[in-house]
Amino acid sequence: MPAHAATAVSCANIAFIKYWGNTDEALRLPANASLSMNLAGVETETTVTFVDNLAADEVFIGGAAQSGTPYDRVVGNLDLIRERAGLRAFARVESKNNFPAGAGIASSASAFAALSVAGAAAAGLKLTEAELSALARRGSGSAARSVPGGFVEWGPGQPGQPDSSFGVSIAPPGYWDLVDVIAVISQKHKIVGSTGGHALAGTSPLQAARVGSVPDRLERCRAALLARDFDHFAEVVEADSNIMHAVMMTSAPPLFYWEPITLAIIKAVRRWRAEGLPVCYSIDAGPNVHCLCPGEHAAEVERRLRENLDANRLLVARPGGPARLLG
Amino acid sequence: MPAHAATAVSCANIAFIKYWGNTDEALRLPANASLSMNLAGVETETTVTFVDNLAADEVFIGGAAQSGTPYDRVVGNLDLIRERAGLRAFARVESKNNFPAGAGIASSASAFAALSVAGAAAAGLKLTEAELSALARRGSGSAARSVPGGFVEWGPGQPGQPDSSFGVSIAPPGYWDLVDVIAVISQKHKIVGSTGGHALAGTSPLQAARVGSVPDRLERCRAALLARDFDHFAEVVEADSNIMHAVMMTSAPPLFYWEPITLAIIKAVRRWRAEGLPVCYSIDAGPNVHCLCPGEHAAEVERRLRENLDANRLLVARPGGPARLLG
Repeated sequence: MPAHAATAVSCANIAFIKYWGNTDEALRLPANASLSMNLAGVETETTVTFVDNLAADEVFIGGAAQSGTPYDRVVGNLDLIRERAGLRAFARVESKNNFPAGAGIASSASAFAALSVAGAAAAGLKLTEAELSALARRGSGSAARSVPGGFVEWGPGQPGQPDSSFGVSIAPPGYWDLVDVIAVISQKHKIVGSTGGHALAGTSPLQAARVGSVPDRLERCRAALLARDFDHFAEVVEADSNIMHAVMMTSAPPLFYWEPITLAIIKAVRRWRAEGLPVCYSIDAGPNVHCLCPGEHAAEVERRLRENLDANRLLVARPGGPARLLG
Repeated sequence: MPAHAATAVSCANIAFIKYWGNTDEALRLPANASLSMNLAGVETETTVTFVDNLAADEVFIGGAAQSGTPYDRVVGNLDLIRERAGLRAFARVESKNNFPAGAGIASSASAFAALSVAGAAAAGLKLTEAELSALARRGSGSAARSVPGGFVEWGPGQPGQPDSSFGVSIAPPGYWDLVDVIAVISQKHKIVGSTGGHALAGTSPLQAARVGSVPDRLERCRAALLARDFDHFAEVVEADSNIMHAVMMTSAPPLFYWEPITLAIIKAVRRWRAEGLPVCYSIDAGPNVHCLCPGEHAAEVERRLRENLDANRLLVARPGGPARLLG
């Protein structure tokens, strides 16, 4: 077999309604449905090359050869691709992010979306978007949401059915000019990454109540998004972020992803909105604060954040497209 | 009727297992049982004088005449005392705290404990400790725990039965030399005081799960306290504080009592304990951090907090006695 190669690019995403905890850890079937926006320009680019004479898979991220858990997770997805394609060859995987990894921007989401799209193409598979999304999910849950474009809803699927849980675009990137001004607080790697964190979700006495309250918030969030109603959107997005962190802080052991500056920005954003600036926050499994606002207010949000951030920095992203093959 | 006067002193208290939310707002019957320690030297002193010729009750706190809600809450307790004693005279109430009010140290707890003990004595009532505790509860729920001495458990009582919910001492002050080193973060009055906050508890989708999980924590906390087992005590006290703040942050509107420095101290305390210093935190409806430790480690905890606190200040309290009449 000759070498077969493909390259794909995928955006990170920010969840408005969060994913936290699985009903099936092995299949990564999520405890609840979630809703997100892809982040244009916050990207992973991945090339997968199946090569006849390799002795094992090789994985490079930002040029560095990987081993241990990061390597094993990539091999896990390659195995799923090989199984589906009837392939035996090992692969070389070369991946690079244009944003800092491990600080709460979902690098694993864009990484596994790009890996799945590139890997499937390199293996000669013709998969639907839903199949690619479900494949990406096996590597990192939220990667399911980085495969389709724009605003994406990801359902929990059916027990024991790995292909039943995938992301679906509910609106294209141009539907609403929503901007995510990301206050990047720290580029240190997290003490507990989100895979480890998801496994702790069930230890919180609050997780079941959170999961039970998601459908109501999801419905209100979808409605506010489709109506471009920022006020209602802001309220439900912040409530969902708060409730995920409430579960994190009450798991055993408790997970405090916020830093003091995270809380300072939460309070500042709430004060700015009370004073009339349409902006709200959402925080993933890390200290960064995603400050969401209509496009016409992004410059003012950026200006105010810069005044409060000292040495930290900002990333600005508009709604992004689907994972795509290059060339 | 001649003037009848009495003066009482009562300690504030810190709850290890927290009270948040009522099943009966009017009677202040709490949603769950709680467990606390009185704070020696963190006190309110209150004199109640029933006077024949007053046209209305007069209430002075720290020398300042009160009106509005603070006045009405005091009059509410005086009315309960008058009703029970068959009295018609109005009263002059003079109260002073030796610690800052409204910043999360339970000033209303010590205030209503002292008011109830002084008021009942001034009215010539002979009440049991349980009756005095239930009376104090009517003014401020956690005041029920400031009437008995030392370590105090307060049960939820029975629906519609105002005297069924009161504090009981489970160990005297000398039972365990536990010290509360309080990092006083702010002396500003709270935007939402705890009476308003309790009324919001039911708006959190997490409150029912919190209430359901209290009995397990209460039992573990009581056992650790009675065994003077600091490691288990620390774990359950922090978990209970976290879960109360999880409910607060997810109420509608959300209540963020923490300040950035609060979170910085939370993280520092957890790090210090992981490194071997026996200390844990507990946070009430305010930004202050109560750092609890065995007495022999209090000086070291104080030293480390001072390094981290900048302009803020410390209060240090050992287990305190019951509310008591003076003279």
